[in-house]
Amino acid sequence: MKASLYEELDKIFHPGCMASVGASSNMANMGMGFLFGYKKLGFSGKLYAIHPTKRSDHFETYPGLLDVPGPIDEVKVSIPARLVPGVMKDCVKKGVRCVTIFSSGFRESGTAEGEALEDEVVRIAGKGGVRVIGPNCMGIYCPETGMSIRADMPKVDGGKIALISQSGGIAISFSLAAGEKGVGLSKVVSYGNECDLGAPEFLHYLARDKKTEVICLYIEGTRRAGELFSALKDAAEKKPVVILKGGSTDVGNRAVASHTGALTGSSEVWNAIARQTKAIMAEDTDEMLDLAILLSLVGPPPGRRIGLLTISGGFGVFATDQVVRAGFEMPLLAKQTQKALFKFIDAPGTSIQNPVDMAAKFFQPQHYAELFPAFDKDPGVDAFILVCAMEYLTILSSKTREWSTAMVKTLINGLNYMKKPVYIVLLHTAEEVIRLEHEHSFLAAGYPVFPTVNRCLLAMQRSMERK
Amino acid sequence: MKASLYEELDKIFHPGCMASVGASSNMANMGMGFLFGYKKLGFSGKLYAIHPTKRSDHFETYPGLLDVPGPIDEVKVSIPARLVPGVMKDCVKKGVRCVTIFSSGFRESGTAEGEALEDEVVRIAGKGGVRVIGPNCMGIYCPETGMSIRADMPKVDGGKIALISQSGGIAISFSLAAGEKGVGLSKVVSYGNECDLGAPEFLHYLARDKKTEVICLYIEGTRRAGELFSALKDAAEKKPVVILKGGSTDVGNRAVASHTGALTGSSEVWNAIARQTKAIMAEDTDEMLDLAILLSLVGPPPGRRIGLLTISGGFGVFATDQVVRAGFEMPLLAKQTQKALFKFIDAPGTSIQNPVDMAAKFFQPQHYAELFPAFDKDPGVDAFILVCAMEYLTILSSKTREWSTAMVKTLINGLNYMKKPVYIVLLHTAEEVIRLEHEHSFLAAGYPVFPTVNRCLLAMQRSMERK
Repeated sequence: MKASLYEELDKIFHPGCMASVGASSNMANMGMGFLFGYKKLGFSGKLYAIHPTKRSDHFETYPGLLDVPGPIDEVKVSIPARLVPGVMKDCVKKGVRCVTIFSSGFRESGTAEGEALEDEVVRIAGKGGVRVIGPNCMGIYCPETGMSIRADMPKVDGGKIALISQSGGIAISFSLAAGEKGVGLSKVVSYGNECDLGAPEFLHYLARDKKTEVICLYIEGTRRAGELFSALKDAAEKKPVVILKGGSTDVGNRAVASHTGALTGSSEVWNAIARQTKAIMAEDTDEMLDLAILLSLVGPPPGRRIGLLTISGGFGVFATDQVVRAGFEMPLLAKQTQKALFKFIDAPGTSIQNPVDMAAKFFQPQHYAELFPAFDKDPGVDAFILVCAMEYLTILSSKTREWSTAMVKTLINGLNYMKKPVYIVLLHTAEEVIRLEHEHSFLAAGYPVFPTVNRCLLAMQRSMERK
Repeated sequence: MKASLYEELDKIFHPGCMASVGASSNMANMGMGFLFGYKKLGFSGKLYAIHPTKRSDHFETYPGLLDVPGPIDEVKVSIPARLVPGVMKDCVKKGVRCVTIFSSGFRESGTAEGEALEDEVVRIAGKGGVRVIGPNCMGIYCPETGMSIRADMPKVDGGKIALISQSGGIAISFSLAAGEKGVGLSKVVSYGNECDLGAPEFLHYLARDKKTEVICLYIEGTRRAGELFSALKDAAEKKPVVILKGGSTDVGNRAVASHTGALTGSSEVWNAIARQTKAIMAEDTDEMLDLAILLSLVGPPPGRRIGLLTISGGFGVFATDQVVRAGFEMPLLAKQTQKALFKFIDAPGTSIQNPVDMAAKFFQPQHYAELFPAFDKDPGVDAFILVCAMEYLTILSSKTREWSTAMVKTLINGLNYMKKPVYIVLLHTAEEVIRLEHEHSFLAAGYPVFPTVNRCLLAMQRSMERK
């Protein structure tokens, strides 16, 4: 049974063709957005625009699904709710595998009419053997196969992070945020009202998906608590699972009621679920992405003893405060480490005890091959944090942007001498565009990057909860 | 006495000419950086490069200060510590008002030699009537008069935020971060070892400076606790003062010892100082800048009852959780408000209770003139948070960047209908470059902008501590 669910979903994540019902000639129309999105990501199969009267110049257009000559694997529906049951019947006739219903106005509306419409969709789909994602959702984004949830989703290959999201906005936002960092995602699914396929099924599938190494879950509530618990337990045994629970306060739950209409649960309940399933809780989307990146690149620190490397004394001082406040330790470096470092870092304004304030020595990469291994070998340190202030990476009046990029590449070569985990803090300071380039460089080299020391520490701390 | 300190410092902040001792022909040299920095900011007076052997092509060069034909108001010194006393004697002879000593290797080095050198500097200066900033510091950055601390400091006029910083790195980093946001600073001073002028004097001056509305202070420690306390109390009575204390944990204090060598103090001591002087404590530079911007633009919220406006249901849900967790309230909007809003926000997927999820109605600015005043008039709400997900502001496949910019301008017009304070959360999602443009637009229109809901809430909360 379980094996067949994996196979069924794997087919759904690899459709041969897609039809978008409600794709008009208006380029800003949602149905058109899906089609352009698939095209942009290089979807290799056929794409059909379905509209009763309008003709698209960009895609093969038919008035209805039944007018399409060949078979259809996947259908996206973005038309008013009351018209959806009719389309569902056509999907059954065409033998469609999976229908994603973008339209809202179903159970989440809180009306009897919406509920009845959703029940009708479920009945038709169940009888006809068609699986449904939604309603009130975006469906699947899969850069590898070219499935998309909007016209402009990023194409980054080799992603290891998956997201299952009850909210479409958060599915898009999370994906765009990852793309902006050059971080790839393996699979994303926005599942909305969960009238058929939902969090338990996608957890089951992604736990077994070889391309996925970390699973993120944004959830507001569920009517299937038992199944969800089992699926979480199963998935978190196989790979890290990060949960962001929307509506974990009473007032937040009131907001959920009008958003997806799902049953919710207090934060105590969800924390207990996380503890028992070994999932990790995050508190917002930034935290969730931070954690996913950390877990997919270097994993949790093996212990709490931190070596802090900075290129600015002031930042070293209050970063130290932050490290200690967050419950980590900052041991004095061993005598032999200090001795080895003193060969290179001896100028006024530097420090070698921990934090190590490299000051201007940062700009002497000829010493990196000795400096970084010396650091790494310290027996009292489990993991390192490198705090980079962009002010030193963008002295653009006397240095060029190319110098700045080369400096980061050199720094990465230095870091590569180290075997213990290194977490990078690249502060928002100046030249945001250059910061973004540097962030890409560090991430591409396998180092997780955070915009503040506290964000770094929070991700490190949460990543250790699973052990 | 006090009046004369203000006048003396005001002259120091308005020098007629500056000489940089140690400015070689090498463009990357620190002494040259100061000169180019003044030039870039449009300093109107004379600029001299002082070097015994090297000649600059860009500035009038002399081998020594005594060779300069006219008077010299300000001197910047960036030469090895042991040569500084000699230069000090020349400064006395030339009647220089203020010397900034960038050089390190004085008291902060922890050596007897460094301490003796610093004492000698103090003795010469005191006897000769020359004021000293430093050693081990960057000195004054003042966009208005053109004084600079590096070659590439930003030129943003009309700044209302001042910074007094014991650390040069943090003075630069804070200034660049503000500049990156298009936020101007009135005056910045990095004062290092505080052998003469220090935090008490600059607090006294900035408390009386008409251009400055908010004072930030980064401090690691002091030997003048009594004077500092009085100056803080005096300044915080006149305008908001935000303090970032570096080294508020034991380990952090160890880091201070090698950075500026000042006496420190536990976080309990500093929290008590803040309470008694009505200053506000921040925990890192981002927080300090957030707070300064909030205080200089709209001030603290007049109460804890928040109206939350979003353009994405998912973000509305967990932003609500964050608001409640941070100790604010999210009351249901009044019946008459809901009625007024329902005229515009009635589509499936929207919500009008609080949070207000505008969803696609966000894109119908024709309703803004009625929508925003309706919001503003709700009697149960003290202040508003608007959560903008960039995913809706950058649908670049179907919309242009110009559309996105125009949309933000329109949104600002809508917000301008509101009289209660509005705080903007502009999430890092996609198109960082466009986000930065939008951030500039909001800030220029007088709205504080934060990258996450939690950062916004933290700044709001801290800003209320002063009342």
